[in-house]
Amino acid sequence: MSALSLLSKKIDEVTQRPDPEAEIPPQSSHTTITSGVGIVKTNYFHFAFPPEELTLESGEKLGPITVVYETYGTLNDRRSNAILILHALTGDAHAAGFHKGDEKPGWWDDMIGPGKAFDTDKYFVICSNVLGGCQGTTGPSSINPKTGRNYGFDFPVIGISDMVKVQKHLMDHLKIDQLLSVAGGSMGGMQTLEWVASYPDKLESAIIIATAAKHSPQQIAFNEVGRQSIMADPHWKNGNYYDGHPPAKGLSVARMIGHITFMSETSMGEKFGRRHGRNGKPHKFSNGFAVEEYLHNRGDNFVNRFDANSYLYITKAIDTFDVSRGRNLHEVFKGIEAKVLVIAFKSDWLYPASQSREIVKACKLAGVDTTYCEIDSTYGHDAFLLEVEEETHLIKYFLQKVSLENGITGENGITNYEI
Amino acid sequence: MSALSLLSKKIDEVTQRPDPEAEIPPQSSHTTITSGVGIVKTNYFHFAFPPEELTLESGEKLGPITVVYETYGTLNDRRSNAILILHALTGDAHAAGFHKGDEKPGWWDDMIGPGKAFDTDKYFVICSNVLGGCQGTTGPSSINPKTGRNYGFDFPVIGISDMVKVQKHLMDHLKIDQLLSVAGGSMGGMQTLEWVASYPDKLESAIIIATAAKHSPQQIAFNEVGRQSIMADPHWKNGNYYDGHPPAKGLSVARMIGHITFMSETSMGEKFGRRHGRNGKPHKFSNGFAVEEYLHNRGDNFVNRFDANSYLYITKAIDTFDVSRGRNLHEVFKGIEAKVLVIAFKSDWLYPASQSREIVKACKLAGVDTTYCEIDSTYGHDAFLLEVEEETHLIKYFLQKVSLENGITGENGITNYEI
Repeated sequence: MSALSLLSKKIDEVTQRPDPEAEIPPQSSHTTITSGVGIVKTNYFHFAFPPEELTLESGEKLGPITVVYETYGTLNDRRSNAILILHALTGDAHAAGFHKGDEKPGWWDDMIGPGKAFDTDKYFVICSNVLGGCQGTTGPSSINPKTGRNYGFDFPVIGISDMVKVQKHLMDHLKIDQLLSVAGGSMGGMQTLEWVASYPDKLESAIIIATAAKHSPQQIAFNEVGRQSIMADPHWKNGNYYDGHPPAKGLSVARMIGHITFMSETSMGEKFGRRHGRNGKPHKFSNGFAVEEYLHNRGDNFVNRFDANSYLYITKAIDTFDVSRGRNLHEVFKGIEAKVLVIAFKSDWLYPASQSREIVKACKLAGVDTTYCEIDSTYGHDAFLLEVEEETHLIKYFLQKVSLENGITGENGITNYEI
Repeated sequence: MSALSLLSKKIDEVTQRPDPEAEIPPQSSHTTITSGVGIVKTNYFHFAFPPEELTLESGEKLGPITVVYETYGTLNDRRSNAILILHALTGDAHAAGFHKGDEKPGWWDDMIGPGKAFDTDKYFVICSNVLGGCQGTTGPSSINPKTGRNYGFDFPVIGISDMVKVQKHLMDHLKIDQLLSVAGGSMGGMQTLEWVASYPDKLESAIIIATAAKHSPQQIAFNEVGRQSIMADPHWKNGNYYDGHPPAKGLSVARMIGHITFMSETSMGEKFGRRHGRNGKPHKFSNGFAVEEYLHNRGDNFVNRFDANSYLYITKAIDTFDVSRGRNLHEVFKGIEAKVLVIAFKSDWLYPASQSREIVKACKLAGVDTTYCEIDSTYGHDAFLLEVEEETHLIKYFLQKVSLENGITGENGITNYEI
C-alpha cells in the first residue's frame, strides 16, 4: 500500500469512522484504491464418507462432510507458501475478492490480496467455512443423509478441535503438508491456538488475534444469554424449524447482545452518543436512540445470513474450548518451533488484552519465539477487522521473517518486497 | 454493629461469598445477629384523582395514583429526621424488616435498622415503590379506571422525574417539608440526583451510590436488548398479556443480560470459574457451566416477581434520564446547600466509577460540599448491596455530620452514638 493510499485511508477513518459489523466489515474506501484478488470462486471438498466418518471430540461420528473453501494466490512448487486463514463466529470461506455480481468483497479483503498483509503475490491463502457453520460446510442446517431432512438438533455437539480436524483433512486433500502460517482473530484465534496444540509440526508460524485460550465465565454468560434468546423463540421448535419460520427474533436479540460486546464504550460514545435515531416513528418506544436503531439493524440483517442452530453449536464450541485441556497453558506450547505473533487491542473488552498476554506468557515460558503487540485502538473487539493499517504492518513484517527463514525468496512468481 | 459481629460477617464473606441478586440481596447471616426493624407493614397513599391528575414529563396526565410505602423508626416532633430511600430498577417499598410470615427481610435490611447505616433509633426512614413499578404503586399492570382493564401499553411513558414527583407528593402527604437525606443506588441514585435537581431546598443531604447522571450508549444498549427480548416474546402481545401467559421467556432473558452486567469479571471468575452446573441433565446443551445455571435460576425467579411491562417502562425511564437536561452538569448543582456523598465501586462496570466522578466534579465546580468514596470491591455493580460494612461506615459518619448540623441531638428518643 502506498504512503498516499495509507494517508487517504487515514483521513477517511478520521472523517468518517467506519460502521463495523464484526466479522463482516464494511466495504472500505481503499478496496477500490488497491487492486484486490478480483473475482474468486467457491470450492468444495467432500470427505468422511461412511464407514470412514470423522470421530468428533465428543466421541460421536459424523460423515459425510462437505467443506467449502476459497483460495487466493498461487501455491509454489514446493507447496511451502500456504497460509490458512480461520474465521470468527459468523464469518465464512469468502475472505477476499468478489463473487460474481457482488458489490461487497470478502470479510477480510482489506488484509488479503496483492501487496496486502497476506500478500497473494507471495503467499497461497486458503479460507474454509467451519464445521457447524451455515455457509457451505456441513452444519445443523445440512441434510442428514440418514433421514433426508436437515440435521437440526440431531447434529452432534462439536468443539473447536473438530473444526481444526476438518481443516487438517482439507490441507491433506490440497497436499499441503506444511503451512507457512495459520492466522485468525476471535474464534479464528482459538482455531489457530488449536492448530498449534494439535499439529505443532505442521506449521511454521501462527498469528493469534484478539482471542483467549479459554472463555471466562463472563464470556460464557454472554453466549449463553444469546443461546437462551434463540431457544426461547417459539419458532425454534427444538431446532426443527427448517420447513417453517426460523427463530428470527431470538437470533436477532442474540446478535444484538453480541454487537454490544464487539464495540467499546468509547467507540459507541463517538458513534452514537445519546443522539436519537432517524427513522423512528412516533411510536411509544420506537422513537429511540441511534444506538438502538443500530442494534435493530444489525440484528435484522443477521437473521438473513445466519442459521440459528449454527449460532447455538458454534457458540457452545467456543465456550467449551480450552486449549490447555486442564494442563498448565505453557505445557501446550512446549517444544514448539513455530513462530508466534499475538495481537490484542486495548479497548477490546470481549477478549481483553490480559487474555492475550496469558497466551504470550505461556509461549515465553515454553521458550517459543513470540512477538506480542497491543494495538492502541478505540474500536473494541471490532478492531481486529478495522485496524487494517497497524495489523498489515505487523503481519507483513512477521510473515516476511518467517518466509525468509523458510526459503521463500522469489521462485514461482513470488518476489521480495519492501515494507 | 459490634466488632464481633463485623468480624463474624467478614469471615462469612471470605468463606462463603454471598450469592447476590442485585436489588434483592440474599438473607445475610448478620440479619439474625443484629436486631432489625422487626415486622413492618405496608402503607398506601392515593392521590391525583381526576380532574387533578398528575402531569407527567411527557405532558400526559395520569391519575388516580396509588403509592405503596413503608416507614421504619419514628418521625421526631420537628419532622426533621426523615430519610427517603430510593430503590433500584426491580426493587420495591419493602426495604427493611419482615412482612408477617416472610423468611426474607427487605432488600436493604442490612443497611436500615437500629444501629445500622440508616439508624432507625435516630432517623425516620421511608421507602416507596416507584411509579411504573409492579409492587403496589401504579404502573402498567394496574387497572386503568377508564377501561376497567390493566393499562398495559396504554400506560403513559414515564421519566425518573415523574417517579420523584410522586415521591414529593408522598412527602407532602406525610407532612415532611424537609428531608434530612435522600439516598439510593443504581436507579435509586438517579432519583436522588433528580431530587437534588428538582427540589434542592427540600433536602439537607443526598447519598448517591453507583449511578450516572445519564446513560451512555452502551448502558442504553444493554437495556434495549432486554426490551427487545421481552417484545420478541409472542406472549407479550403489545403489552396486553394480563389475561393470559406473561412473556416469561423474554423477561427471563432480559434479566439474565442484567445479571451479567451486575457482576464483575473477577466476581464471576471467583464464584463460578469454568465449573459445571449441578443439576444439568445429560441433555445436549443443558449440562453446562455453573454460570449458565446461575443465570437460568436468576431469570426464572425474576419472572415470578416482576411485570414485563414495568421492566420496559422503567428501563426506558432510566435510558431517557439526563439530570442536566442538556445543560452543563455543574449548573444543576449551582447554589445547592445540601451536602452530597457519592459512592462508587472500583469493579462496577455497569456504572463505572468514572460516571460517579463526573457527578463529583460537577458538584465541586458548583461549590457543593461533596464527599466521594470509591470502594475497592470486586463485586461489580452488586457491590452497592453487598459492601455493607464500608457503606455503613461512610453513611453513618456522613449522616451524623448532617444531623448534628441540623440539631438532631437526641430529643424524641433520638440519641447520639459512637461510630
